[in-house]
Amino acid sequence: MRSAVITIGDEILIGQVTDTNAVWIAQQLNIHGVRVGEMVTVSDNASQITAVLDRYIGDYDLIIMTGGLGPTSDDITKQTLADYFNSKMVMHPEILERITAYFKERGRSMLEANRLQAEVPEGCRVLINDHGSAPGMWFEKQGTIVVSLPGVPYEMKGLMEDHVIPEVNKRITVPMVVHRTIMTQGVPESYLAAMLRSWEKALPECVKLAYLPRPGIVRLRLTAVDKCAGEAGQLLEGIIGKLLKIIPEHIFGYDEMTLEESLGNLLKEKELTLASAESCTGGNIARLVTSVPGSSAYYTGSVIAYNNRIKTELLGVDPSVIKEKGAVSREVVEQMASGACKAFGTQTSIATSGIAGPDGGTDEKPVGTTWICVQNGIRSYAAKYSFSGTRERIIDQASYTGMQLLRRLILGNI
Amino acid sequence: MRSAVITIGDEILIGQVTDTNAVWIAQQLNIHGVRVGEMVTVSDNASQITAVLDRYIGDYDLIIMTGGLGPTSDDITKQTLADYFNSKMVMHPEILERITAYFKERGRSMLEANRLQAEVPEGCRVLINDHGSAPGMWFEKQGTIVVSLPGVPYEMKGLMEDHVIPEVNKRITVPMVVHRTIMTQGVPESYLAAMLRSWEKALPECVKLAYLPRPGIVRLRLTAVDKCAGEAGQLLEGIIGKLLKIIPEHIFGYDEMTLEESLGNLLKEKELTLASAESCTGGNIARLVTSVPGSSAYYTGSVIAYNNRIKTELLGVDPSVIKEKGAVSREVVEQMASGACKAFGTQTSIATSGIAGPDGGTDEKPVGTTWICVQNGIRSYAAKYSFSGTRERIIDQASYTGMQLLRRLILGNI
Repeated sequence: MRSAVITIGDEILIGQVTDTNAVWIAQQLNIHGVRVGEMVTVSDNASQITAVLDRYIGDYDLIIMTGGLGPTSDDITKQTLADYFNSKMVMHPEILERITAYFKERGRSMLEANRLQAEVPEGCRVLINDHGSAPGMWFEKQGTIVVSLPGVPYEMKGLMEDHVIPEVNKRITVPMVVHRTIMTQGVPESYLAAMLRSWEKALPECVKLAYLPRPGIVRLRLTAVDKCAGEAGQLLEGIIGKLLKIIPEHIFGYDEMTLEESLGNLLKEKELTLASAESCTGGNIARLVTSVPGSSAYYTGSVIAYNNRIKTELLGVDPSVIKEKGAVSREVVEQMASGACKAFGTQTSIATSGIAGPDGGTDEKPVGTTWICVQNGIRSYAAKYSFSGTRERIIDQASYTGMQLLRRLILGNI
Repeated sequence: MRSAVITIGDEILIGQVTDTNAVWIAQQLNIHGVRVGEMVTVSDNASQITAVLDRYIGDYDLIIMTGGLGPTSDDITKQTLADYFNSKMVMHPEILERITAYFKERGRSMLEANRLQAEVPEGCRVLINDHGSAPGMWFEKQGTIVVSLPGVPYEMKGLMEDHVIPEVNKRITVPMVVHRTIMTQGVPESYLAAMLRSWEKALPECVKLAYLPRPGIVRLRLTAVDKCAGEAGQLLEGIIGKLLKIIPEHIFGYDEMTLEESLGNLLKEKELTLASAESCTGGNIARLVTSVPGSSAYYTGSVIAYNNRIKTELLGVDPSVIKEKGAVSREVVEQMASGACKAFGTQTSIATSGIAGPDGGTDEKPVGTTWICVQNGIRSYAAKYSFSGTRERIIDQASYTGMQLLRRLILGNI
């Protein structure tokens, strides 16, 4: 089954609102084995909506539309659909009863606009909305299903779950698509692609690979389509098994697991506690680690030392070493990591010191130069990196690199 | 000028990634007076890309495409455009030089895939990318401009700002739409709407208002359209002047200025330094403050005290007070704020202690309960808040509330 998603709303076209409905619908359809071929956003305008329907009907098996079903005059989707499918508008007694009851319960008076929400194009299948007043509508034409849902996210989600997904599941015989994502850290996209060339070449025709980079992280998405989708579970496991032999040290999880969750799980499993000492990352490591619910079980805290005196006073860094080697140096970042373990009484620590920019770079230490040290009570590992990009990107890369280095140190994989 | 936005990428159609590029582009185009008529997402597939171009060329003045320009084999946009515009691929010496220099600087070897990023369709205008390796491309056909940009957000934004927006500004004669945004903190959307009801009612017909909430922050967007757009500057200034009289203490800036920038500017202007002591916000205040370039001029650092012993040892909080009042209390957060000023030698501080959840709440102190204290060497102000939502939302609300409270304390507006 192939699908298109239509979002109707001026607020999206002027950039005022991000369209989270379309991405949620795409996720749900994919999970249930439906491929989404195209997503489009159009204005609250009858001729534009009609043109998009003309384009998609016949080409796709399923069209999901959201938006434009509210009670105000700028909401024109329902009338447009009635005209498009040559239907006249009729009052739907069950919906009218529901809307009347809704207003009565709340002691509010019902306006004509609210009453009109109970009208639907004759001949469409009505999807009762248990989450709001506007019903969903289901049309079929030339082998294409057209579903119209309200734009309010929780109403749309409710109608998808109550009506659309169950009906889609009934009609789908074989899923067309199955995904697995492998999360990696430490190798930029183009290098990773080079390292994985022969593995990638050996993929079966019906398994596609995509590289999805974020600052400091690259996700590898495997997609089994068509005839592979039926037996995707075992097939993808085998492919991931081979990948694990090539880059074991760079994989930290699967299917949108975050690095901070992965590190947290490892610390809990090994019963270790963590502190950080951050200069250039400015609290970003602390923020990521504490974004995980329950992180207080293993995370004790951090000193953000945005000036050299603090490095000395709170972390015990030798001021003569800062003077001699500079704040961005192996010696300082090692002393910061030791100082964090000591000050917070933890077994493990991550320390960062670098130049996040845009100013502060020199010929010898350009913007992006970052020293990172990780310790686990047994070993200390420090390395220098040259990150590139904006201040935000450099901070992100340094943060993720620090967390992954600590994972590798704990796992004895460095 | 009318525009369409095309996003290319399977990761969006499978719901793995929310398309933030399209919304950012729509925002920017609107700000500069370009109306966006349609946004579409298609797969990394040559015939689909070609079909969309056929559909839009001639209909729109400007088409912005993003995605599919990376170095890996699933990136097919550049070749598709070369075929579409009947161009052959040629090596661009300046880009090749830049890519070569980029790899040399970092002491990394250059791969064939990286070298090929310097190839462009002959006859297109090349947009030099100062933020990454893939250049942008500018084509014109039948009165329509077609711009292709990389999908990596900061590269796309860089190319938009460096090349596309300046060129668009040159070609626009009359703007069709003008926006101003007022940034507020401290009042939830529905309360703000009630406070501003009569101001909103007095807006001229051709000025639209939108409430755009984010956790802890509400943006008010004024949009002057049609006949108002021509004289929008003065008109909107007058409207904002009236707003300032109603909610002076809640406005911290305009047009996407961040609260961390606004606070930073104030600290610099008043020659004050800042430290933070964070419990429930877990480093998020530090991260936000240090995300501003040059923040080391006023920010000294933070202690993230994720356990009570650290509050005592590094911030000097009296352990008997923690025992008696609990870590989430006025007394503890006041001592944390004083301790931060003392430990870091600063005039001002922000301290937070709360229950971010999802666990750890009690009947007396449910999840979301947060004490915040701000100090400026002259006064100390502490207050208790009941934030709601997810862990992430609670942390964001506490962080922004803390920063805005400090602004108000410094400005004598609390």
